[in-house]
Amino acid sequence: MPVIECVPNISEGRRLDVVARIADALRTTAGVQVLDVQSDATHNRSVLTLAGDRGALKDAIVRLYDESLRAIDLRTHHGEHPRLGAVDVCPFIPIESVSMEACVELARESGAEVARRFGLPVYLYEEAATVPARRNLEDIRRGEFEGLAAKMQRPEWAPDFGPAAPHPSAGATVMGARMPLIAYNINLATDRLDVAKKIAAAIRMSSGGFRFVKAMGIPLEDRGIVQVSMNLTNFEKTPIFRVFETVKREAARYGVTVLESEIVGLVPAAALTQAAEYYLQLEGFKHDQVLETRLRAAE
Amino acid sequence: MPVIECVPNISEGRRLDVVARIADALRTTAGVQVLDVQSDATHNRSVLTLAGDRGALKDAIVRLYDESLRAIDLRTHHGEHPRLGAVDVCPFIPIESVSMEACVELARESGAEVARRFGLPVYLYEEAATVPARRNLEDIRRGEFEGLAAKMQRPEWAPDFGPAAPHPSAGATVMGARMPLIAYNINLATDRLDVAKKIAAAIRMSSGGFRFVKAMGIPLEDRGIVQVSMNLTNFEKTPIFRVFETVKREAARYGVTVLESEIVGLVPAAALTQAAEYYLQLEGFKHDQVLETRLRAAE
Repeated sequence: MPVIECVPNISEGRRLDVVARIADALRTTAGVQVLDVQSDATHNRSVLTLAGDRGALKDAIVRLYDESLRAIDLRTHHGEHPRLGAVDVCPFIPIESVSMEACVELARESGAEVARRFGLPVYLYEEAATVPARRNLEDIRRGEFEGLAAKMQRPEWAPDFGPAAPHPSAGATVMGARMPLIAYNINLATDRLDVAKKIAAAIRMSSGGFRFVKAMGIPLEDRGIVQVSMNLTNFEKTPIFRVFETVKREAARYGVTVLESEIVGLVPAAALTQAAEYYLQLEGFKHDQVLETRLRAAE
Repeated sequence: MPVIECVPNISEGRRLDVVARIADALRTTAGVQVLDVQSDATHNRSVLTLAGDRGALKDAIVRLYDESLRAIDLRTHHGEHPRLGAVDVCPFIPIESVSMEACVELARESGAEVARRFGLPVYLYEEAATVPARRNLEDIRRGEFEGLAAKMQRPEWAPDFGPAAPHPSAGATVMGARMPLIAYNINLATDRLDVAKKIAAAIRMSSGGFRFVKAMGIPLEDRGIVQVSMNLTNFEKTPIFRVFETVKREAARYGVTVLESEIVGLVPAAALTQAAEYYLQLEGFKHDQVLETRLRAAE
């Protein structure tokens, strides 16, 4: 049975009763599982993680926008995280027995539906983007809700679906399809921030590193150490183990060792399995040799 | 939902219609999944892998013995693998949300039921053994079907359940509870069999190695290399990565490198995850961060 993940980010992280009401509306949608809900008061933002098949998620999306647009008004919303909509971003992610193409199609159909029902401008991003300038979320979001009316007057920022002006209280929304994102951090046994920053620069795409790595060096002041904080945006093409080994080697260049690493939030099993395959030099291993995979397939 | 695995080994590996009939009887038992069926003509033996909860497996066990005892007659059975029964051995294995104690109890209840229904002597082994001399399958099976009548006359070999003499056509059966077994092989980039044998001796429990490793050195004649062929009988306490690293280090002692390793058949996801945790130095990782685990829990 196909499994698609959907990770809407909504612009509410303080009124937890509102977040709970939205999560409950999703939870009671037939065929949808709510795997995780994380709210951040400083960001004033919540990240919901849903899973289901195409049909179930289409129903869930309508409920998500319906509940969120009723409860969230960006004209009075403040928080540290950039945002341009009440439902700020909503990606679909292929997990099991489903292609990226199917997720792109689901994003486009859902975008058209949301624009029609709620009169909301919709931008398509990442794999679902219709032009290269809209692949990156940051480019679409630049200017945020407050700058949206002016931005949308420029013809190159006409939305993919919906009206050519912002929704009064809900702004716009960004929908799309992408690979699972892994939040991965490596802690170094040093307090030298320059080392973490140099390593981050060496491994991230924007300064010549791996194609699917975003990275920055930050201090963990309470522990007196530094961290290379990363997003791995395609673990199949830029795997965790290669990033880890490269950071270890770069750190050695400065006489620094890796203290530990950590995965924040959810990770697809295949991202861990590929690390085991690499280090154990496993030949001919097939994913359906994993007992739990066989169990799921038999269900 | 609790998941118990059950891996009956039956003494038929040539008449595949008989094996298919037995597998079908299990497959149509409500709540039981048949994950794998492997038949070996040389051994004249088949290994079935089932999964389900306690109630479903109890039903399946009755069908398994019923179909097997009708179709298999050990008086005319020949094969390379040692065996003492039509259903030779039947272990229960804790997989998810279930304790070893629950599997021991299931083995005992199933043993009593099989003895009562089919007049079959039942021995309990491994974690379900009632005396230490019955922990090892090899000790119970020594003498095989042909020597069973004589062996059972000795009071220390009275069965745990059932009559004190063999079933005429089906011999006896061995039931029990154990950890998942991982069939794991490491191929060396050499044709020196003595090196594989020395490494096998170094890592297996019987000659001073790891507590939960059985190992032997064998030649892979068609490839001109040698293999350390292993069973890992408790991957939680003797993990794959520790065995792999030890073999690599021992091989270096002889100037030999590891070519590759392989897992034969099914492996629990946790056995691979623990390797990823070790090599990536993952701190604070929790099994329920694996997306697929979260999915199964939500189902």
